[in-house]
Amino acid sequence: MSKSTRQNAFYAQSGGVSAVINASACGVIETALRSKRIRRVYAGRDGIVGALTEDLIDVGRESRATLRALKHTPAGAFGSARFKLKGIEQNRAEYERLIEVFRAHDIGHFFYNGGNDSMDTALKVSQIGAALGFPITCVGVPKTVDNDLPHTDCCPGFGSVAKYVAVSTREAALDVASMARTSTKVFVLEVMGRHAGWIAAAAGLAGGGPDEPPHIILFPEVPFEPQRFLERVRACVTAHGYCVIVVSEGAAYPDGKFLADAGTRDAFGHTQLGGAAPVVANMVREAHGYKYHWAVADYLQRAARHIASRVDVEQAYAVGRAAVQLALAGVNAVMPTIVRRSSSPYRWQIGHVPLGAVANQEKKVPPAYIREDGFGITAACRRYLEPLIAGEAYPPYRKGLPDYAHIKGVPVRRKLTTEFKL
Amino acid sequence: MSKSTRQNAFYAQSGGVSAVINASACGVIETALRSKRIRRVYAGRDGIVGALTEDLIDVGRESRATLRALKHTPAGAFGSARFKLKGIEQNRAEYERLIEVFRAHDIGHFFYNGGNDSMDTALKVSQIGAALGFPITCVGVPKTVDNDLPHTDCCPGFGSVAKYVAVSTREAALDVASMARTSTKVFVLEVMGRHAGWIAAAAGLAGGGPDEPPHIILFPEVPFEPQRFLERVRACVTAHGYCVIVVSEGAAYPDGKFLADAGTRDAFGHTQLGGAAPVVANMVREAHGYKYHWAVADYLQRAARHIASRVDVEQAYAVGRAAVQLALAGVNAVMPTIVRRSSSPYRWQIGHVPLGAVANQEKKVPPAYIREDGFGITAACRRYLEPLIAGEAYPPYRKGLPDYAHIKGVPVRRKLTTEFKL
Repeated sequence: MSKSTRQNAFYAQSGGVSAVINASACGVIETALRSKRIRRVYAGRDGIVGALTEDLIDVGRESRATLRALKHTPAGAFGSARFKLKGIEQNRAEYERLIEVFRAHDIGHFFYNGGNDSMDTALKVSQIGAALGFPITCVGVPKTVDNDLPHTDCCPGFGSVAKYVAVSTREAALDVASMARTSTKVFVLEVMGRHAGWIAAAAGLAGGGPDEPPHIILFPEVPFEPQRFLERVRACVTAHGYCVIVVSEGAAYPDGKFLADAGTRDAFGHTQLGGAAPVVANMVREAHGYKYHWAVADYLQRAARHIASRVDVEQAYAVGRAAVQLALAGVNAVMPTIVRRSSSPYRWQIGHVPLGAVANQEKKVPPAYIREDGFGITAACRRYLEPLIAGEAYPPYRKGLPDYAHIKGVPVRRKLTTEFKL
Repeated sequence: MSKSTRQNAFYAQSGGVSAVINASACGVIETALRSKRIRRVYAGRDGIVGALTEDLIDVGRESRATLRALKHTPAGAFGSARFKLKGIEQNRAEYERLIEVFRAHDIGHFFYNGGNDSMDTALKVSQIGAALGFPITCVGVPKTVDNDLPHTDCCPGFGSVAKYVAVSTREAALDVASMARTSTKVFVLEVMGRHAGWIAAAAGLAGGGPDEPPHIILFPEVPFEPQRFLERVRACVTAHGYCVIVVSEGAAYPDGKFLADAGTRDAFGHTQLGGAAPVVANMVREAHGYKYHWAVADYLQRAARHIASRVDVEQAYAVGRAAVQLALAGVNAVMPTIVRRSSSPYRWQIGHVPLGAVANQEKKVPPAYIREDGFGITAACRRYLEPLIAGEAYPPYRKGLPDYAHIKGVPVRRKLTTEFKL
């Protein structure tokens, strides 16, 4: 079937972006453009939204240098989307629209770069395409800073945010330590991870154990007990003169209520959203009166390509390349995975897993990785995390700033006359 | 006078630390240890507090490798202090105690590494020493991330925080841009600078003008007008799909009230301190309903040695070295300065200025550096700032993390029997 071997490929980014999702894009695109069995490579502008609205970018119109530069450019160069397709029963029209667009542009390969929601979408697209007589090879490309995808040892995007958080914690802790005698005694850093504490755990790499900062990590996996926490803070300040706390945005009370939703109100009585760090800092101030500071890294942490992990960049590229290789080998409805062969020395290889096994599942930090007191990481966790932040992969600089890629984003001529309303 | 040429030297860090204050320490210490005219080099543990309590560190007992590593280590390796000596009239005892300790340890050279308060202290020490018959050469070493010292083109510490803020703004802006169609439309980053907007201004380097992020900078120098701000946010989201805002912690209403003191209260009605970013973000949400995110970089920005400016590191070292050279040349009660000879290509040299000219003064961002609409920087400001963030000076890494120096901190044997209560 010579026609199908010369179909086009479609790539889209999905969900929250990362420092290395464009490295995966680079892996997909470079590999696809090199293949004689793929005609053109398109990307969705703003992810799957671009497919639904027939807003496709002709990736082949970008220079080779720009495409290469994606490897060192953070965030989503083609645009990503927080847009979860509904279940097929609720909204079959969305899936049929995707197939309509894919058919119009002769897209035989669909590479979807995202988290577990996206793997679910990719699976359904492959099923509906087949049902509608337009079979598409759908391969997921794993991406999530939260590191919560199952069946892969780690997720591209996580290693870099882990490195950022570990480095920043080490640096801020030195700051606090040097000032504690006459100034700030408690520092609180809030990090991402609403459901899983992997990013918070990574802060633990900054120190060597309970006596080194971060002295306290608050995981989503460990119900927050204010009394026990406040006692630990006091003990820490007494013993060391200061206390560095890393709190996950997902840290919650035993009843499941997030610390960040502590009922804070502004001057007008409106609920004030967000910020586990100020809540924790305030709690410490009211109980102990210590001078405090707090930081919320927010997007800074997941966009920080300037301090990306080299291992993470390599893995992000590798899963992108592997996705295309799998598709070309005729393997459908799978996601490439990172398989750890050994921790020391660190050795990994690419595997793959059916999309159905990944979809809509979450991998939390296991009890064996959390210290018995609930406030730190174990040696096993350290062995797991350490290789993931190894190596630096600095972007090139121009006038003191990272020289990140900007795509031209040449649109593919529309073929459909129908509009799609989001 | 052969004795005085073989006196000891004393170095202390003062006030908020920076990514490069230890590079200045390295410049002072390496230069002093090489001089045949200085016997021993001591540092105050926790800054001037170490002098008052006779808690001195024998710097000569550190390895040469550790001392060299100070050049790439953030924060205050010997400890710093927020401890302002009172005026001589109010508390002459503190100054006399300093002279007592300096006399006991035959300290003929005092190097004080800090901001304008510290320059005032150094000046008074030199005056009182002379009055008490124990003359001391007092040389200030400029340091402040706020860049608000007068008579020097820039302050060591500023270039690195400026680079951090510019890089982080560029990265986070890419993140927001790539998600804006279906997710966050407004991102607010809070940066330091309670009285001067230099750090906020540096964020302006991330983009090329009003149409590129950061779209809005809120300076302490420009009174905050909510209506005008909110209109600009809406115009920006309409034109670009998103809006990146950088707010200085010192941004204030026309009546001088800080945005951060907006009367926010927690669930118990207690005043909640801090955070101009959440206040601004909330304001945008209530007016326009846009989805938002906010970040507060806090200590992360001033401790971020991993992304220090090479120019800043070099200047920090140079002012430390120059301080010792000035002292050895018999120049008293001065502070080395950075003198800009040209912006493009960037050329600078070391000058010096009397301590009395620096003490207790603040240099704000001048009107010529703030765009007419008050929301951005001018071309003149860009020409001033750009050279200061030039070049990278990466620390060495070990296991994925910066390998920062830890001093042994061998104490100098006490000579006084009197205690000093802080």
